[in-house]
Amino acid sequence: VSLVDDLTSALGPGAVLTEPDDVAAYCTDWRGAGSGRPLCVVRPGSTAEVSTAVRLCHEAGTPVVPHGGGTGLSGGALPDDSGSQVVLSLARLRAVRGVDAAGDTLTVEAGVVLADVQAAAASVDRLFPLSLASEGSCTIGGNLATNAGGTAVLRYGMARDLVLGLEVVLPDGRVWDGLRPLRKDNTGYDLTQLFVGSEGTLGIITAATLRLFPATPRHATAWLALPSVEAAVSLLPVVRSRSGGSLAAYELVSREALDTVLRHVPAARDAFGEPHEWYALVELAGAATDDSLDDALEAALAEGFEQSLVADAVVAGSPSQRESLWLLREGISEAQNHDGASLKHDVSVPVTLLPELLADTAARLDAVLPGVRLVTYGHVGDGNVHHNLAAPVGGSGDDLRAAAGDLADAIYDAVAERGGSISAEHGLGTTKRDANAARKDPVELDLMRSIKQALDPAGLMNPGKVLPADSP
Amino acid sequence: VSLVDDLTSALGPGAVLTEPDDVAAYCTDWRGAGSGRPLCVVRPGSTAEVSTAVRLCHEAGTPVVPHGGGTGLSGGALPDDSGSQVVLSLARLRAVRGVDAAGDTLTVEAGVVLADVQAAAASVDRLFPLSLASEGSCTIGGNLATNAGGTAVLRYGMARDLVLGLEVVLPDGRVWDGLRPLRKDNTGYDLTQLFVGSEGTLGIITAATLRLFPATPRHATAWLALPSVEAAVSLLPVVRSRSGGSLAAYELVSREALDTVLRHVPAARDAFGEPHEWYALVELAGAATDDSLDDALEAALAEGFEQSLVADAVVAGSPSQRESLWLLREGISEAQNHDGASLKHDVSVPVTLLPELLADTAARLDAVLPGVRLVTYGHVGDGNVHHNLAAPVGGSGDDLRAAAGDLADAIYDAVAERGGSISAEHGLGTTKRDANAARKDPVELDLMRSIKQALDPAGLMNPGKVLPADSP
Repeated sequence: VSLVDDLTSALGPGAVLTEPDDVAAYCTDWRGAGSGRPLCVVRPGSTAEVSTAVRLCHEAGTPVVPHGGGTGLSGGALPDDSGSQVVLSLARLRAVRGVDAAGDTLTVEAGVVLADVQAAAASVDRLFPLSLASEGSCTIGGNLATNAGGTAVLRYGMARDLVLGLEVVLPDGRVWDGLRPLRKDNTGYDLTQLFVGSEGTLGIITAATLRLFPATPRHATAWLALPSVEAAVSLLPVVRSRSGGSLAAYELVSREALDTVLRHVPAARDAFGEPHEWYALVELAGAATDDSLDDALEAALAEGFEQSLVADAVVAGSPSQRESLWLLREGISEAQNHDGASLKHDVSVPVTLLPELLADTAARLDAVLPGVRLVTYGHVGDGNVHHNLAAPVGGSGDDLRAAAGDLADAIYDAVAERGGSISAEHGLGTTKRDANAARKDPVELDLMRSIKQALDPAGLMNPGKVLPADSP
Repeated sequence: VSLVDDLTSALGPGAVLTEPDDVAAYCTDWRGAGSGRPLCVVRPGSTAEVSTAVRLCHEAGTPVVPHGGGTGLSGGALPDDSGSQVVLSLARLRAVRGVDAAGDTLTVEAGVVLADVQAAAASVDRLFPLSLASEGSCTIGGNLATNAGGTAVLRYGMARDLVLGLEVVLPDGRVWDGLRPLRKDNTGYDLTQLFVGSEGTLGIITAATLRLFPATPRHATAWLALPSVEAAVSLLPVVRSRSGGSLAAYELVSREALDTVLRHVPAARDAFGEPHEWYALVELAGAATDDSLDDALEAALAEGFEQSLVADAVVAGSPSQRESLWLLREGISEAQNHDGASLKHDVSVPVTLLPELLADTAARLDAVLPGVRLVTYGHVGDGNVHHNLAAPVGGSGDDLRAAAGDLADAIYDAVAERGGSISAEHGLGTTKRDANAARKDPVELDLMRSIKQALDPAGLMNPGKVLPADSP
C-alpha cells in the first residue's frame, strides 16, 4: 500500500490532495510561484490527525513540509521538485480553544489567521499585538514557526515574545503538550523558544497559548519629514523618554518607498507640499482612560524641531486621518507588487549603525548595477530595514534578476561587516539558507546541526530549510 | 600527570584551590551548607581560560560544576560529595566589556555582580531592570543560567527576556560567540534561550549582551491592605488599565510574612493601626519628565476603594517613605533567616487560580503538620508565590524537617492539579530535580534528555542537575 493510500484511509479522501490543480496553491508563496511538486498535500483536521499523518510519513521515510497561510518570503513552506515530499497544511486547525481575559492568555490552533487571533483578543477587550502586512492571510502557526516581526516589535517584541506555551507534533508523530499558560516556569529547558523560529524543521506547531495585553484604543499618530536617517535614530530616544511605555510604532520610509506608494495606491496622498529624503511614522497608544498621549507626542515633536531632527510634521486629528498616514507605510508592500520585479531583503544591525549601513549599502549596490532603485523602509527602532530592489528607471527586470546574486552579496557583506543579520524577520527557508551558512560562525552551525540531529534523526521535518539538507 | 596539576600549570597556582578551607565557600549556597566535596575549585580569569579549563576536564572525563555568586536556592551550583567534580567559578570574569547607550545594550562578563550591572546601566542613564533580594552578591552569569525572576518581571519579564546574546563555553571547551546586540535576527535556532535557564548543564555562560531600558527615576508607590487574595487578583487589571505601561511592581505579602518582618527587622513599622490578612506593594515608575504617575495611582486606588478591593492604603510621600514601604516586602527573606528553620518553595499557577491555590495549599499543609506556619509572599502579577514554611508556634525545627517531604508533596500536588509550576523562579538544581521528573510529561523529559545528549554527549556539564544523572 502506498503512503498516499495510507494517508487517505487514515484522514479521509477529502483530506488528501493529489491533483495538480489542487496542490498548486501549496507550491507558491508571497514571493511568487515556486517550482515545487509534492507527492500530495494532506489537510488534517485536528492535532490527533496531524500526529497520525506525521507518524505515517515517518514510518514511510517520507519528508514532511508544514504549510500555514502561504505568505512566507523565504520559501520555507514550499516542497521541493522531487515529487516525494508531503505538504502538511494546518489550515483546518482553526479553533480558538480558550480565552482567559483575567489571566491575559489565549489558546489557539495553528491554522487560525492572525487577524482572527487579533479579533479574539479584541472580543474580550485585550490586545494581541502581533501585526504585519499579511495579517489577513498568514496563520499564527506560521507566525510562530518563523518568529514573525512586524510593526509592534518595538513595544511588544517578536512573535517569540508573545507565546507562553506550545503544542507540537514531533517528527515521529508524538505530541508534546506544552500549552502552559504560566508567566514563570523554571522546570527545564526552554523547548518553546527552540520550536519558535525553527521553521518547521524540528516539529510542527499545532497550537499555542499566547500572551494578551491591555487594549490600547487611544492613539496619537504623526507622520514626520526627516532630514536624514541619523535624525530618525537620534529622535527615537527623545520620543521614548517623552512617551514612557506608550510608544507603539516608529517606522522609517524612504522617499523612493513613498513615491512607489503614491504611484500605485490610489488613496495615498503626500502629506507635505515638498518632497523630503526620509519620513517616519510615530505612534503612541494607550488605554481608553489615557489622555496623556497627545501632550506627550507634542512635547516629543517640539523637542525634535528644536534639535533640528524633524523638518515637518502632520499629526492625525481623527481615526480616518490616522488611517491615511498608516496607508503611506502599509501600502508599500502592495505598491511594490505593481511596480515590476523586486528583490526583497530584510536586514538588521544595531540601531546606531543604521545610517552608515544605508549609505554603504547604496554605494555598493550602485557599483553592482548602476541606477538600481533601493526602496528602503522598516522598523528603525529595531535596527531593521527592508531593502527592496527595483530595476533602474528604464531598465529591465531581467537585468535586475541577472544581477540578483551580486546585489544580495553586496547587501549581506555590508550587514556582516557590522555584525548584523541577513534575515531579521523573514527567516532562512531555502532562499537565504546558503548565504547564511556561508557567513555563520561554524560553532553555531554545528550546534544547530546537533539539535536538528537530536530531535529529527531521520531528517524528515522540512528538510533543506534553515540548514543545507546535506549537512552531516 | 593529574588533572589538578594540568589545571594548575595552565591557569597558574593561584587559580586552583584544593585546601578544604578554601573550597568550603563553594560548597554552600543561600539554602545553607551542602555536603559537597570537589576535586578542586578553578578560578579562570578570562573566557580563554574557562575554555582551557573545560577542555582539560573534558579530556580527563571529569565533571564540571559552574559556580556564580553562590546565592542559588536549589543546589544547582554545588558539587556532589564524590570528590571527583571540578567547581569552576566565574567570579574573576568581572569586566564590563562595553555599553552602547544609544543602542540600549550592555555587554558584561558572567562574574559581574547584578548590582554592578544595574550600576553600569545607571551610569549612562539607563535601567537594567532585573532586581532580586540577592542582587548584592548574585552574578549575571548565574542569573541567566537559572533564568532569574524577581520584582520587575511584571513589566520587563524574566532574565531570559533581558538578554540579546551570549558567549558560551561548550562542554568540549569550544567557545560559541553569540554576543549579537541585535533586536531581530531570524537566522537559525534560538540557542541563546536554550542556554538561559539550563543551569549550566549544556555549557557555561561567560558573557552576555543585555537589553537596557529608559531610566525610571520617578515613582509612585503604595502599600495596600487587602481583604483577600481575590481582591489582589481583581485589583491588578484596574491598576494596569489606569497606569498604562508604568506599572512596575505588584507584590503580595501575607500577614504571617509581615509579622516575621516586624519581629526581626528593627527599622520595619506596620503602616496601619490594625492588622489585615493581606497586603500589596504597588509601584508605578516613569521617566523624569513623567508627572502622570501620582494621578494614575490615585485614580487606581479610588477605583479599588469603590469596588471594595482595597481596605486601606498608604502612599509614599518621599523617597525615604518609599524605602520604608519596600522594606516590608524586601525584608522578608532576611527576617526568615532569623526565624528558625524554613522550607522554601516557589510555585506558580495562572494568575486567576492563585486564590484557590492558596486556600487549598493551606488546608493540605495543615493536614500534614497541624499548625505549620505558611509564610506566603511573592509576585501576584506573575501568578508566582513563595511559600516558606516555618514550624508551628512552640513546635520544633526537627519536626518541620522530618515532615519536609510530605509538606513538599502537598504543595506540589496542589500546584500540579492546576497546571502550575513547582519551580517558578528558583530552578531545579538537585533539590527539585526528582519531584519535577516525577510530575513532568514524559515526552518533554525525553526532549530534554535528547538535547542534553546532543550538546553534552559525555555528560560532564553539571551532571545530576535539572535531569537525574542516571537518565539514559
